[in-house]
Amino acid sequence: MAVHFNQITVIGVGLIGGSFARACRKKGIADKIIGYGRGEENLAKGVELGVIDSYSLNVNDSIKGSDLIFLSPPVESIISLAKILSGCLRPGTIITDAGSVKGEIVRTVGSIFPENVYFVGGHPIAGTEKGGVEASFDTLFKGSLCILTPTAKTQKEALSTTREVWELLGSEVSEMDAAEHDILLGAISHLPHIVSYALVNSVLDLHTEKLDIRKFAAGGFRDITRIASSPSRLWRDICHLNRGEILKLVENFRNSLNEIEECIRVEDYTGLEEHFSRAKGFRDSIG
Amino acid sequence: MAVHFNQITVIGVGLIGGSFARACRKKGIADKIIGYGRGEENLAKGVELGVIDSYSLNVNDSIKGSDLIFLSPPVESIISLAKILSGCLRPGTIITDAGSVKGEIVRTVGSIFPENVYFVGGHPIAGTEKGGVEASFDTLFKGSLCILTPTAKTQKEALSTTREVWELLGSEVSEMDAAEHDILLGAISHLPHIVSYALVNSVLDLHTEKLDIRKFAAGGFRDITRIASSPSRLWRDICHLNRGEILKLVENFRNSLNEIEECIRVEDYTGLEEHFSRAKGFRDSIG
Repeated sequence: MAVHFNQITVIGVGLIGGSFARACRKKGIADKIIGYGRGEENLAKGVELGVIDSYSLNVNDSIKGSDLIFLSPPVESIISLAKILSGCLRPGTIITDAGSVKGEIVRTVGSIFPENVYFVGGHPIAGTEKGGVEASFDTLFKGSLCILTPTAKTQKEALSTTREVWELLGSEVSEMDAAEHDILLGAISHLPHIVSYALVNSVLDLHTEKLDIRKFAAGGFRDITRIASSPSRLWRDICHLNRGEILKLVENFRNSLNEIEECIRVEDYTGLEEHFSRAKGFRDSIG
Repeated sequence: MAVHFNQITVIGVGLIGGSFARACRKKGIADKIIGYGRGEENLAKGVELGVIDSYSLNVNDSIKGSDLIFLSPPVESIISLAKILSGCLRPGTIITDAGSVKGEIVRTVGSIFPENVYFVGGHPIAGTEKGGVEASFDTLFKGSLCILTPTAKTQKEALSTTREVWELLGSEVSEMDAAEHDILLGAISHLPHIVSYALVNSVLDLHTEKLDIRKFAAGGFRDITRIASSPSRLWRDICHLNRGEILKLVENFRNSLNEIEECIRVEDYTGLEEHFSRAKGFRDSIG
């Protein structure tokens, strides 16, 4: 029988939480969906749009009677919210999250919650440039990847139920270590964002009234810096939560950059072409 | 009266040269278009496709009777080709080019050519990922930018004629110093390519059979590294020709990266958010 919940609470009804609620409703996964968040206006909008059935401004009230809790607040708040919730969870509840860094969340939350509730760390790799419940839509997760990060302690049934939910929402689910997740996402997402921000800042200083760089921003710059438009606060928090891995990845990247720079400096153009070809070969294989 | 040439020679009939020929033909800018290049197969294809009327495998034969010569071979070959041509140019010929680095070309070519022919340095900022005459199309330059880099010596009429040609082809034409061009393109194109290559190489080492990074290449990596699929040889040559500016820009970029890294290292998250916000503000203004 398909997975079904009497009531789901979505904590943080933004793009991800709102889309999760909409998709769960559309797929008949829940009879009732309750929202919690800091902004009442956003929550009221969520009710108006039919994304959630009702909301509470008290997080412990919002989870009463729910058998699935979806944590999708700003990533930095997941741990503190989990601490608040930990005393009020009824046995058998499944809690999963959408945090884009997993190590610290899985470690901390895993030790906070009582043994009779089931936490499954998750990270749906989906999003658009817009935020808020009004930007949410029920097909956000269709065709996207979702990573679940179970530990040895994770209850098998809760894990397979959570996987089933994401699959019903159209995601392709992968399971891996939280640590492995943080290296992977560090490499394919966190590092590129940092590089993109740094690239914009380094070029910004050349921008003057006389030389309007924006006018000429074709030629690679527009594409490679698009992600520098991402929310500064979110990326600050991600850098905080995945600090260790990110520092290692930045160092690796600087080494790669230095190698290329050194070829240019000493005019080793054969070596330079080899560095470029190596990158091109791998990038071409991604499509 | 609209600009018109009896005969144009396109040297290097690839994507840029082929598209220039096609567009000139479509706009009735030339009665006859001759091609020159190293690969006979490509030139024969150009004739078959109606891009050029005929071709020659001898560059000096190819320019006989032409009143406009368009130099669009690989950027590294422009100067050596100009040297070969310099003895055979008939008075009044306009020569322009499509080299993506301008300082050295403008300096050298300006001193090679006799005073009775007119060189106008140019750089149409257009292109696709594909190369060769088969990839060329007559609207490649429509809506694109074209930078012309006149010097004090550039003949005014030749400059305005060259401008008119590009405008007929649909380009928005800007004029600037060759040196200014090389800083600008270094910043918005050359540096981003180097950063993209370095980013792919630094992440490539994490790619294993167990952790297939390609599968997860959403999350920023795919976009920011797309330009790492550019031809390695071309970018090697650009690094050679714009070496001085590129080394300065790489250093600026590394400084920006180091500032961000330092904030993460010492956990100055307020400072970190400021770096991100500054970049975001500028990037948002590009659209």
